[in-house]
Amino acid sequence: MNQTTAFDPREFRATLGTFTTGVTIITARGADRQPVGVTANSFNSVSLDPPMVLWSLAKSSRSLEAFQQSGHFAVHILAAGQEELSNRFARSGADKFSGVDVGEAAGGAPLLPHCSARLQCRTSFVYEGGDHLIFVGEVVAFDRSGLPPLVFQAGKYAVATRKVTALAPAGGLDANWSEDHLPYLLGRAYFQVYFRIREQVRADGLNDDEYFILSTLAVRDGLTQGEIEAGLSHAGCNCGFPVLAGLRQRGLLRGEDGPGDLRWFLSDEGRRRTLHLIAAAKDIESSVLDVLGEWDAVALKNLLKQLVLSTDPGLPDLWNPSSPRSATAGA
Amino acid sequence: MNQTTAFDPREFRATLGTFTTGVTIITARGADRQPVGVTANSFNSVSLDPPMVLWSLAKSSRSLEAFQQSGHFAVHILAAGQEELSNRFARSGADKFSGVDVGEAAGGAPLLPHCSARLQCRTSFVYEGGDHLIFVGEVVAFDRSGLPPLVFQAGKYAVATRKVTALAPAGGLDANWSEDHLPYLLGRAYFQVYFRIREQVRADGLNDDEYFILSTLAVRDGLTQGEIEAGLSHAGCNCGFPVLAGLRQRGLLRGEDGPGDLRWFLSDEGRRRTLHLIAAAKDIESSVLDVLGEWDAVALKNLLKQLVLSTDPGLPDLWNPSSPRSATAGA
Repeated sequence: MNQTTAFDPREFRATLGTFTTGVTIITARGADRQPVGVTANSFNSVSLDPPMVLWSLAKSSRSLEAFQQSGHFAVHILAAGQEELSNRFARSGADKFSGVDVGEAAGGAPLLPHCSARLQCRTSFVYEGGDHLIFVGEVVAFDRSGLPPLVFQAGKYAVATRKVTALAPAGGLDANWSEDHLPYLLGRAYFQVYFRIREQVRADGLNDDEYFILSTLAVRDGLTQGEIEAGLSHAGCNCGFPVLAGLRQRGLLRGEDGPGDLRWFLSDEGRRRTLHLIAAAKDIESSVLDVLGEWDAVALKNLLKQLVLSTDPGLPDLWNPSSPRSATAGA
Repeated sequence: MNQTTAFDPREFRATLGTFTTGVTIITARGADRQPVGVTANSFNSVSLDPPMVLWSLAKSSRSLEAFQQSGHFAVHILAAGQEELSNRFARSGADKFSGVDVGEAAGGAPLLPHCSARLQCRTSFVYEGGDHLIFVGEVVAFDRSGLPPLVFQAGKYAVATRKVTALAPAGGLDANWSEDHLPYLLGRAYFQVYFRIREQVRADGLNDDEYFILSTLAVRDGLTQGEIEAGLSHAGCNCGFPVLAGLRQRGLLRGEDGPGDLRWFLSDEGRRRTLHLIAAAKDIESSVLDVLGEWDAVALKNLLKQLVLSTDPGLPDLWNPSSPRSATAGA
């Protein structure tokens, strides 16, 4: 560890940032009836009986007087989707409440929608705390929505996910290469989920390669064989001419002469069957996400997107609406 | 939202639990020189100049007197691996410090090792807070280790991961089925990572099926064809007799008559080449994890393990040391 006794403020902030927090917006209505609101992660619970919470506000804040006068405040524990609202209330000036569907909390404090939870408080104590004041409030009403909360860690927005210590019930397995090897975990997770989709694909008389080709064309029709290969060959998919011609012969694809090369389209029958398979895949996904829970599903998709971005070998972006051929989303 | 004005304590706790926190252990040495320590998630920062933090302690705590007398306390922001220490200090009684390599903080407070960060504090104020007291301390020394922190959310341990909003740089893509479809994200992440391993496998004259078989036998030797198939067929892997016999013919496997069926073992040459490929796969994994960052790597592996557990179709557990055949870990 890096012992620091001299106070480098940046290092001190980084050390405090190690403590993960949620993100709140605290609102009140000052003596002039003007609404105020600030983003704060200094919130925490204090007491259960009586129910009390606290948060700290910089003495330099423009809203200090309003919070001191109001006698009430409302705490909004932000949901994962409220990053933008958090940013808006973290800046000073401007009309922070503009365009927001504001309700009214105890003591007239503005109440914001779509949060993970909200606590309406009557100010009990305002304590001295260095360059901040500590507001302690008694909770007079509260509600929660079940939405996964926004998280703040090391100076960045984050989402949190339940902790699992070992894959298998038996202990000591993390030492084994396979159990903790990312490609293994990715592969096993993928194949276990895809396994159930493959059953549907097989039942429809298709193999994996054919399914990959059809679902790619469901996202964007009219690709050449080369374009299909550029998108799928990293997956070890065989999308050579014989496979495409086989799908045409079965009435699922049609080929049209395009500039330079033959372009492949889903036939009506091909589209119908592909959309049917995609719907089945979405059902399977739903059942997996149900078991995982909504909060962890958000975190997992988030991380997989990060991984996909950071390991992208330069695959064509079929979904990018700014690229010439417009996407034809499957479902 | 579920408006609740009557105070169901369970619902109130659940609402507070929506606010994500880190986990700390706060220690001190009482007037009798005995060390005390409690797990608390009520910690937060208060002031930058002077540097101050706060936390709350139940008035009913056995350690209350010691914290009131000590005049100092040390805050330990726990790392993701310190769940057990957190549990130990959350229970009352017993010798919480037994077996821990304790250092000494300002004012004689015990200093615990292997945390994400530590703050040594001199008590500035002790404030009234309902059924708790609020301890505000001025930070006199601090250090941090860079270890990812333990997180607490909705009553459970968690880890947090940086938030990514969209996969592709262009916006509005989340509406598309593929971009946000879990099997797609899993498959794309897996194939993008495996793609680089496959290059090594191909360079060694092997195909995917053969690599899967060899690396399975590197984890546990002496499996029958049926056992190999039970572990790999969900991945669409062809591990029939001709594939096994082909590997034997190339000197990578040997078959031995076992009770009931032929059992397959890696030859010395097969083991050497498999371990070489596994080492290459681990190098590729390292470079991927470097880009992702250690904190997110912990979170991603954690979620994949959860997904693997929750979608396990009943695959044989080759890694479980309690099952009859002892594992022979590859690396």
